[in-house]
Amino acid sequence: MTYCLAIAIEDGLVFCSDSRTNAGPDRVSTYSKMHRFSVAYDRSLVLLSAGNLATSQAVVAQIQRDLEEDASFNILKARYVADVADYIGEISVREQAKYQASSAPGAGPGFNANATFILGGQIKGHPQALYLVYPEGNHITASELYPYLQIGEAKYGKPILDRIVRPDTPYETAMRCALVSMDSTIRSNATVGPPLECLFYRNDSLKPHARYFTLEERHPYLAKLRQSWDDNIREAFTKLPPLNEVFADAE
Amino acid sequence: MTYCLAIAIEDGLVFCSDSRTNAGPDRVSTYSKMHRFSVAYDRSLVLLSAGNLATSQAVVAQIQRDLEEDASFNILKARYVADVADYIGEISVREQAKYQASSAPGAGPGFNANATFILGGQIKGHPQALYLVYPEGNHITASELYPYLQIGEAKYGKPILDRIVRPDTPYETAMRCALVSMDSTIRSNATVGPPLECLFYRNDSLKPHARYFTLEERHPYLAKLRQSWDDNIREAFTKLPPLNEVFADAE
Repeated sequence: MTYCLAIAIEDGLVFCSDSRTNAGPDRVSTYSKMHRFSVAYDRSLVLLSAGNLATSQAVVAQIQRDLEEDASFNILKARYVADVADYIGEISVREQAKYQASSAPGAGPGFNANATFILGGQIKGHPQALYLVYPEGNHITASELYPYLQIGEAKYGKPILDRIVRPDTPYETAMRCALVSMDSTIRSNATVGPPLECLFYRNDSLKPHARYFTLEERHPYLAKLRQSWDDNIREAFTKLPPLNEVFADAE
Repeated sequence: MTYCLAIAIEDGLVFCSDSRTNAGPDRVSTYSKMHRFSVAYDRSLVLLSAGNLATSQAVVAQIQRDLEEDASFNILKARYVADVADYIGEISVREQAKYQASSAPGAGPGFNANATFILGGQIKGHPQALYLVYPEGNHITASELYPYLQIGEAKYGKPILDRIVRPDTPYETAMRCALVSMDSTIRSNATVGPPLECLFYRNDSLKPHARYFTLEERHPYLAKLRQSWDDNIREAFTKLPPLNEVFADAE
């Protein structure tokens, strides 16, 4: 599995992805799931992928090829981020169809070529935008109240996002929240793992170099973050209201 | 859906369950999923159920009937909690088989009669025990390191249990952790909802009246707990190590 998320705040867009892929417990590998496409001061786009690795790699390869071959439509020719989301949806559906059971005799009953993407960024002259592209090729954007999108193993890390992230959350808090959401998932699910990639695109900057870092398993910051969060959470528990008042029957 | 959990600590056993059931978005109801079977100073057992409501109701009804009819085996005749887990597994498998697609022509393709149970408690002369009974009828117990079991919509509430619960956690902390795990799930998933039921069985007490309470949606303690947890979590974020040190490229 995979876990990727993106947060749309007033400051800009935060992206975070893990790097573990697995096809069965003895086929565990590490691949980056964060892909960046930028032209300085014109457009800056980030793509996160989850699902079938062959499909996501084929989609990214096709995007690159369309750029190199200056195809009739490519990421540089798009006027809106939504157009790029449509384009990625179309490539993804085409790639999946090649290998699904009905058309590919090699596919077993458990085979699933589905892939899901998060696409975010900005094209000059338009506001920043964030989309989730479904395996069916259609897409949604984030909600105003809970301005984030998740793909892959999303449930473990959702409660902390629901509690913390709002449109006016500062970007450092949003990034740390993304890391805690990711770390909670890693701790509870063996199919999600580091290195973690984290990127912040500042709204209207359109700069080629967004704020970006990766955290390997043994990175001192990741260790510090985990320890600090564990300590803080334990302390938070000690401050919860005592239960005496709710017991219906005395012991 | 449903979310139920139980925690085995040195102090005893903590049980917590929600009360929402739904068969499609327009068939939402409230049912208790916590069932207690006790004989003072001899045995004290708690059963939590998730999955198909008809199956779980049929299992509880059969347990009651076997008690009333003094069947050749019933909960009062069991020597070990594990025997009760086997017995519940057998009833559950029998009930599910009646309605599964192959034997029941009325069942549509999406129909699922599966039910999962958590059974915990103590029988005089033996230590406390906690089991999860699968739809297949077999069962597992909790692990030493992460001494809890969950059924139903378990992923949202798992990270907080992984961070907090250890065998030596005091029972008040374990109960509050169960409530926070439950509240996080309610917040992130519309198919889990109050009233919440929470029970603490103190190890070796074998008392008929365990510590028990229910929290309705508007219970002041639940409101206080939510507010306090939200505040504490936000404060916990402010104390996380700053990100400056990890940015690979300056903005």
